[in-house]
Amino acid sequence: MKFTCNKSDINEAINIVLKAVPGKTTMPILECVVIEAADDELKLTTNDMSLGIETRLSANIEEEGIILVNAKMISEIIRKLPDEDIYFESDSNENILLFCGKAKFNLSGKNHEEFPMLPKIEKEKKIVISQFTLKEMIRQTIFSISNNENNKILTGELFEINGDEFKIASLDLHRVSIRKIQLKESYGDIKAVIPGKTLSEVSKILTGGMEDEVEIFFTKNHVLFELGKTIIISRLIEGNFYNINQMLTNDYETKVTVNKRELLNCIDRATLLLREAENKPVIMNVKNDEIKMEMNTKIGSMDENIGIQKEGKDLRIAFDPKFLIDVLRVIDEEEVNLYLFNAKAPCFIRDDNSYIYLILPVNLIDN
Amino acid sequence: MKFTCNKSDINEAINIVLKAVPGKTTMPILECVVIEAADDELKLTTNDMSLGIETRLSANIEEEGIILVNAKMISEIIRKLPDEDIYFESDSNENILLFCGKAKFNLSGKNHEEFPMLPKIEKEKKIVISQFTLKEMIRQTIFSISNNENNKILTGELFEINGDEFKIASLDLHRVSIRKIQLKESYGDIKAVIPGKTLSEVSKILTGGMEDEVEIFFTKNHVLFELGKTIIISRLIEGNFYNINQMLTNDYETKVTVNKRELLNCIDRATLLLREAENKPVIMNVKNDEIKMEMNTKIGSMDENIGIQKEGKDLRIAFDPKFLIDVLRVIDEEEVNLYLFNAKAPCFIRDDNSYIYLILPVNLIDN
Repeated sequence: MKFTCNKSDINEAINIVLKAVPGKTTMPILECVVIEAADDELKLTTNDMSLGIETRLSANIEEEGIILVNAKMISEIIRKLPDEDIYFESDSNENILLFCGKAKFNLSGKNHEEFPMLPKIEKEKKIVISQFTLKEMIRQTIFSISNNENNKILTGELFEINGDEFKIASLDLHRVSIRKIQLKESYGDIKAVIPGKTLSEVSKILTGGMEDEVEIFFTKNHVLFELGKTIIISRLIEGNFYNINQMLTNDYETKVTVNKRELLNCIDRATLLLREAENKPVIMNVKNDEIKMEMNTKIGSMDENIGIQKEGKDLRIAFDPKFLIDVLRVIDEEEVNLYLFNAKAPCFIRDDNSYIYLILPVNLIDN
Repeated sequence: MKFTCNKSDINEAINIVLKAVPGKTTMPILECVVIEAADDELKLTTNDMSLGIETRLSANIEEEGIILVNAKMISEIIRKLPDEDIYFESDSNENILLFCGKAKFNLSGKNHEEFPMLPKIEKEKKIVISQFTLKEMIRQTIFSISNNENNKILTGELFEINGDEFKIASLDLHRVSIRKIQLKESYGDIKAVIPGKTLSEVSKILTGGMEDEVEIFFTKNHVLFELGKTIIISRLIEGNFYNINQMLTNDYETKVTVNKRELLNCIDRATLLLREAENKPVIMNVKNDEIKMEMNTKIGSMDENIGIQKEGKDLRIAFDPKFLIDVLRVIDEEEVNLYLFNAKAPCFIRDDNSYIYLILPVNLIDN
């Protein structure tokens, strides 16, 4: 194999595929990247067995071929080369020769035949959305996936499409996050649970451009994200997701409208009184046109009043401050609406069309 | 005690004194900051027993007094308060009340009488230099202090003043770094060994401004840095520093002049072939008007030619790449001069007036 390519092109491509290279693995071959030269293009592939990435870049191919080489090592070498074209050459013994400027490297490759190439995915069921929107939807829901591998389904996020309605949802034992949008076209009915790890890597690769689109293809066991010259293939999590709709309601006893930044900063300050493992709730006293926020810990206490608009009755309720902070951080609106029933019922933070967050309160009697 | 102060003023002051708060300590009182209100000023003091910092800021004092409070906690609370004035109040039971905007905090202080206040330093022997220069001199020498606490003297840096000549030096078993400047005035003869930890904290507090000055006072056991409203007091390391002058020479057999950036980047690339604990030298083949740099490791090999100007004979010599990188990173000049004798003698990297670095080579036969 012999080819010449632009340093920054291959550097960018390797940084993309690195996201499917496992940090620790008992299979050293998965630490490698496949570099395939054919048809005036290079194709780079990595695969950690649940997530696989493939990306393409143009190159000047003198002799077609394929090499397998440690991904982190080659990425570090390329990153530190001078900003000039790089010439690669490999022989039948997997020896790799790399020239760039006046630098010459000799490296050992591996036999590419042992590498688990990506599965072929049938491109039938799909949706198309902007990369910006998908990136936002992931950011606004991924924080409430569960880390508990014993309940695998909760370590992923539900992707649900009904016609032109697209919904992403995640939940753990204390909260639910739902983000909805209207698609430009109507697609069929699709339901899939995508691993959180996949989504966080996809999110890093998404450009976030309003104009750039991503196509998402679904099969029974896999999902494929296609964005420009890159495809990301992931296994789905098997099993049925929880029925979220039955947890939701539009009723309420108290509706509080509050400045998001003010509420977030206040809770943030309250948590300063928590030492590492300490687990004290923040108490919200909703009274007339104010919330009095309170926190009492071993170190000291704080209270602060925040002006609100209120419909319905007064209320005293307590929450794990982390759960409120997580939600308030991802909402872009200046004001949020909290919908409450009583001290033991969940709080809903939602707007009419795009998001619903549900947070369970902490029992006040315990504190 | 009662006072009101500007949030960003006290925030800045606390960030300065935090540098003498120990990360881990068996004496929890050292994790505290003393806040003293008197004469329209606040004075903040911290002390980890080898390093102490005191800084002042203006405040509106309603009632004079003194409090002792956990430094990290109070700094985090202040940092997250709204950008408004902060009101502090404390009673005789060490309870601290803090108001800012609509937020109110209750915190417990400690008895300030148990805190080890800073020693009184006689301000007799001193020098004055610009903060920029001192910061640079520390940066350009501190990397070669030793971490070995068994040879305490090498964990510090020598500050030596002879008339108007000021020299900072550090050394470990493999190398020596010396940085010299000419002072504006002539001072007496001073010699002191200052702990590396002190210098790295001082360096962070120095503004780096050309116009800002720092006064350095020396006593038998202490050094005091005075910069604006802040003073930093440190113990000196006892004992005699190595006689550096007898390690130096102006002779050489080979003089190599090379572009610093090119040499540094090449060595940097060569180290990419080193896996974690691997300890292979970079080999320099000085021949005619080129250095051929070579590195051979388990992973592979690299070589690269760099153009040079040379006086004297050809030479093959090997170095720990880290030591060369450390020196080349802190030299600001575009070109450097290497002075060499043979494969077993030290390499000198020096200019006429301001710096001398000495690096021992690695035995080539072993590799």
